[in-house]
Amino acid sequence: MAGSTIGRLLTLTTFGESHGKAIGAVLDGFPAGMALSEEDIQPYLDRRRPNASALSTSRKESDRVELLSGVFEGRTTGTPIAMLLRNEDAHSSDYDALKDLYRPGHADMTYDAKYGFRDHRGGGRSSGRETAARVMGGAVCAKLLKELGITVQAKALTVGTPAEGDSAGGVIEVVMKGVPAGVGDPVFDKLDARLASALMSIGAVKAVEVGAGVSASSMRGSEMNDAFTAEDGQIKTKTNHAGGILGGISNGMPVVLRCHVKPTPSISLPQESVNRRGGSVTIEIGGRHDAVIVPRAVVVAECMCAFTLLDLMLSGMGARMEDVKKRYSL
Amino acid sequence: MAGSTIGRLLTLTTFGESHGKAIGAVLDGFPAGMALSEEDIQPYLDRRRPNASALSTSRKESDRVELLSGVFEGRTTGTPIAMLLRNEDAHSSDYDALKDLYRPGHADMTYDAKYGFRDHRGGGRSSGRETAARVMGGAVCAKLLKELGITVQAKALTVGTPAEGDSAGGVIEVVMKGVPAGVGDPVFDKLDARLASALMSIGAVKAVEVGAGVSASSMRGSEMNDAFTAEDGQIKTKTNHAGGILGGISNGMPVVLRCHVKPTPSISLPQESVNRRGGSVTIEIGGRHDAVIVPRAVVVAECMCAFTLLDLMLSGMGARMEDVKKRYSL
Amino acid sequence: MAGSTIGRLLTLTTFGESHGKAIGAVLDGFPAGMALSEEDIQPYLDRRRPNASALSTSRKESDRVELLSGVFEGRTTGTPIAMLLRNEDAHSSDYDALKDLYRPGHADMTYDAKYGFRDHRGGGRSSGRETAARVMGGAVCAKLLKELGITVQAKALTVGTPAEGDSAGGVIEVVMKGVPAGVGDPVFDKLDARLASALMSIGAVKAVEVGAGVSASSMRGSEMNDAFTAEDGQIKTKTNHAGGILGGISNGMPVVLRCHVKPTPSISLPQESVNRRGGSVTIEIGGRHDAVIVPRAVVVAECMCAFTLLDLMLSGMGARMEDVKKRYSL
Amino acid sequence: MAGSTIGRLLTLTTFGESHGKAIGAVLDGFPAGMALSEEDIQPYLDRRRPNASALSTSRKESDRVELLSGVFEGRTTGTPIAMLLRNEDAHSSDYDALKDLYRPGHADMTYDAKYGFRDHRGGGRSSGRETAARVMGGAVCAKLLKELGITVQAKALTVGTPAEGDSAGGVIEVVMKGVPAGVGDPVFDKLDARLASALMSIGAVKAVEVGAGVSASSMRGSEMNDAFTAEDGQIKTKTNHAGGILGGISNGMPVVLRCHVKPTPSISLPQESVNRRGGSVTIEIGGRHDAVIVPRAVVVAECMCAFTLLDLMLSGMGARMEDVKKRYSL
Repeated sequence: MAGSTIGRLLTLTTFGESHGKAIGAVLDGFPAGMALSEEDIQPYLDRRRPNASALSTSRKESDRVELLSGVFEGRTTGTPIAMLLRNEDAHSSDYDALKDLYRPGHADMTYDAKYGFRDHRGGGRSSGRETAARVMGGAVCAKLLKELGITVQAKALTVGTPAEGDSAGGVIEVVMKGVPAGVGDPVFDKLDARLASALMSIGAVKAVEVGAGVSASSMRGSEMNDAFTAEDGQIKTKTNHAGGILGGISNGMPVVLRCHVKPTPSISLPQESVNRRGGSVTIEIGGRHDAVIVPRAVVVAECMCAFTLLDLMLSGMGARMEDVKKRYSL
Repeated sequence: MAGSTIGRLLTLTTFGESHGKAIGAVLDGFPAGMALSEEDIQPYLDRRRPNASALSTSRKESDRVELLSGVFEGRTTGTPIAMLLRNEDAHSSDYDALKDLYRPGHADMTYDAKYGFRDHRGGGRSSGRETAARVMGGAVCAKLLKELGITVQAKALTVGTPAEGDSAGGVIEVVMKGVPAGVGDPVFDKLDARLASALMSIGAVKAVEVGAGVSASSMRGSEMNDAFTAEDGQIKTKTNHAGGILGGISNGMPVVLRCHVKPTPSISLPQESVNRRGGSVTIEIGGRHDAVIVPRAVVVAECMCAFTLLDLMLSGMGARMEDVKKRYSL
Repeated sequence: MAGSTIGRLLTLTTFGESHGKAIGAVLDGFPAGMALSEEDIQPYLDRRRPNASALSTSRKESDRVELLSGVFEGRTTGTPIAMLLRNEDAHSSDYDALKDLYRPGHADMTYDAKYGFRDHRGGGRSSGRETAARVMGGAVCAKLLKELGITVQAKALTVGTPAEGDSAGGVIEVVMKGVPAGVGDPVFDKLDARLASALMSIGAVKAVEVGAGVSASSMRGSEMNDAFTAEDGQIKTKTNHAGGILGGISNGMPVVLRCHVKPTPSISLPQESVNRRGGSVTIEIGGRHDAVIVPRAVVVAECMCAFTLLDLMLSGMGARMEDVKKRYSL
Repeated sequence: MAGSTIGRLLTLTTFGESHGKAIGAVLDGFPAGMALSEEDIQPYLDRRRPNASALSTSRKESDRVELLSGVFEGRTTGTPIAMLLRNEDAHSSDYDALKDLYRPGHADMTYDAKYGFRDHRGGGRSSGRETAARVMGGAVCAKLLKELGITVQAKALTVGTPAEGDSAGGVIEVVMKGVPAGVGDPVFDKLDARLASALMSIGAVKAVEVGAGVSASSMRGSEMNDAFTAEDGQIKTKTNHAGGILGGISNGMPVVLRCHVKPTPSISLPQESVNRRGGSVTIEIGGRHDAVIVPRAVVVAECMCAFTLLDLMLSGMGARMEDVKKRYSL
């Protein structure tokens, strides 16, 4: 039942509800000796913050990260890095009217089905606010990757245009450059399987593609296959339909994924629904909501990929006998 | 690095290479007391077997499962269920010419990058043959689900038409009916995240969609949201764009996923590639291969979903204090 | 490398260093619907607090727990329960002189060997202060067990008498009463194996015994075996040399363990040692330390056992087909 | 519930019952490139085999290991190493009379309590025969450790003398030499915690000690603490009461553990017991049994420690930023 920890050697545990006291993340298994301060993490949170555009919530989330542990004299110590965000400016009373109602597209009904009741304020644990914890963890991982020459960059490929009172979705692409060949494990812990899980675990994501993705199903083998070539002894592929992954293991080309984000379920148009006793209701959702979540989700997707890649890289350090010998032999 | 085990409470561990001695599966954590024999598993393997059509390999895989443990007097005992398939009719010498070559679209290059060398015969561990082990494990899970009134059914939505010497892909849809509301965990172990990982871990899958999937990204909230209704006290939704999952937890509607399968990378047309020393080569792949893997992959997708659903159902049995009390109080 | 999370379905993640900003615990997978407030947890922390006796440190640890998440309107919600203790009254400068020295019996040398450097203040992550997080997590579990009629009680069997400037150890016994028969898993997740790990993970513990423990090795089978009897249809054993566990699974008798606690390594007598460059030094440790840690460790042992037992109880809810059917069939 | 897998990066999964078709082990996450054949494993199984002495069962266990996967051209490939032992010479009918009886000291009663019924033949999954699978997995790990200059050696410190028709226990000591400083993780995955769990998971073990162990509880700090010295720049300790582990991490000294083995529960003397309906019975256990299991358990203890040490060594390869950079930077 414990679904709030992800990773194997490197683990990210998150906690907190939208209108609770705080949101937090614990990143454990991170290598010792990397320079780290709150200034490395804050810019990622800032990228996730709602902006002044018409598309975003007006909730004021100042969101100053506080580093609680795992760093000593400016460097990571190898012990758990705990990061905290206090919740503030939470208008819980906005949600009183929705307490017994099931908002379409939200997790109200399913949390009740699973747990018998729920923290209804702002979506509780199922709120998009939970992703702030992912961003804190991912920001730390992205810094390490950057020191290895690996960049993880996401952007919105498409952003829908919401009508009046309605909402829209969009598509986010993540590109990881500089990933060495050989990362990922066979069978169930394939790099693409782990990345798909990491991205699909973001609330609004309904599809994940790797490389050619959906279009692969209508291609011929002769089109899909990326021809190998060698430049200066470095093996590359001419095209990258594989998205940088073959057999679940990176091949040295950019790792490319796309995720499809559904429109924000909170809309102010009237919607047909039920209350928890099964009675019919019509609801119009007020409060502060993003009409399009996509721009804010970009950094979340980036962070989930950075975390996942780093976990698999750390897990793979002992894949060869020669590396184990190099590390441990006298 | 251990990537061959999946699941939390219920685990599936697979082993074996395409041209090694055997392929096997160990299913641990399965409830005690279910009737089980080899006859329950064999039909699933038969569905995966290459048929006589022009699309499939001519490799003769008789594939008779042997139950090694975990069943006593015809019932599961709660201990690991080990299942074995001996490999036979393996023409390893077919692969001698490919030993030092990197076949485009295959994992030859990436296994070498990770491990330094590989079992090149028939793709070794990265072969589609590995999925036979998944099918054995999933067949056992599907039987239990059926006893609970839950059906897991996959079918090919589209199957490409391969040209002469070429290959094609297709789309597989999985529908799970009768799934009770409340299955899945918040945040990282969401039902859709776990299913996406399970499906993406099948070799040739390049995209996974849940419910409306890709199309969700271009919908409005007012279209995407499924309106709740109640029939005889049972809460349902009028449409099922969510694919039966809200906030990572099942809502009682059918769980619907699609996965996009790339064309088989083995084609007999000449392809540009390199050998392991980086020299340019042109390769034409002989041997026995499926021109389209989709029909055989249907049962694999079905089995991965059955396993994943059951693991999350077992994990969720103690989600409510009242159920814990009912089980353990005097 | 991530060693700060324990458990399978129920997980406890801890973070924090002795002289960092805070110590914390995240308990995930806890059933929804149990009444919980800071008042349930605080008494356990109070039991761990140093008292005024000559044996304990004079560090003032007011240690007021703050519940950050996972509780709504006084009840657990099924989502992660995060608990925080701010550090205060930390005299970090006491440790400046010890910065480059390796205190005998402490983890100074081994943390440097593993990570290259360490937070030396008060032992950093290896400090006994870390156990406050375990106590917070265990207190919550103990409350649930109590509601099921299960008590977990530890006490000091022996407490050594420290000489002037020296320290002493002792023995702690944990007894769990009301544990239903059938808890624990075969082979590697045996109830005794998991409890042994949980207790041995407490810093100063050097031995763990179950039931007859050490004395079992010099008994005959005819003495060791506990004869079964039945009272009112309830199967019991006449003696309890097994400590309530047979084949790794509880048998309904009290579960009994003992752990042996070494003397506190911090003593003010002069000790021979080295600094991190391998130079010989003589050190006398000042600062505030417990001469005997045993009385404070009692509640820690109790909490680790409560957590472990509950995790295995939750994990075992689907062990029988009939229970799975009862929970999920229509 | 899945209790038959142990380890994090390196995992060992076992399956099989005493009188089922086979016993097996799957070792996953093992580094690629080590020479391995059945001849490396067989001697370990031979050490476990019952000998002709009066103390051992007369069951003929020829136990020829069959390597099924994970090895190609004599070297490990990084994929799961599956090993199989066919059961033979199983006199299942010996157990018919015991079918409904609960043998004192055995797991008959607890398996029934957990699962509702059991494979009663020869103890089923709870039989000592299951340890043959652990030996196969551990033998492979021990070989790798040896190549790194690390030896894992166990011996019987004491072996009890069984009376006529009775049984006896004993003490086994495991010493691991050449273990580099820095192995093990803080808090819950401490080297000693993991080793304690691994040893306590062996059926008959009732206590585990590390270093001074039980005697530590009655020592003074000035006695217990091992003074550090330096020889040729190498930091050592003058004594080894710590058993080579400080704060859960190895310090470079020999790692020393002892486990206390209870007398074999199967004795031919008459014992008071009950049947599964709670009726009183007197049982005398015939069949073939070891009067003292200790000599055969020595290699099992050795193998569990070898496995556990290697898992933690592989997990720790990325503990320092500088090692991660060395491995992955261009």
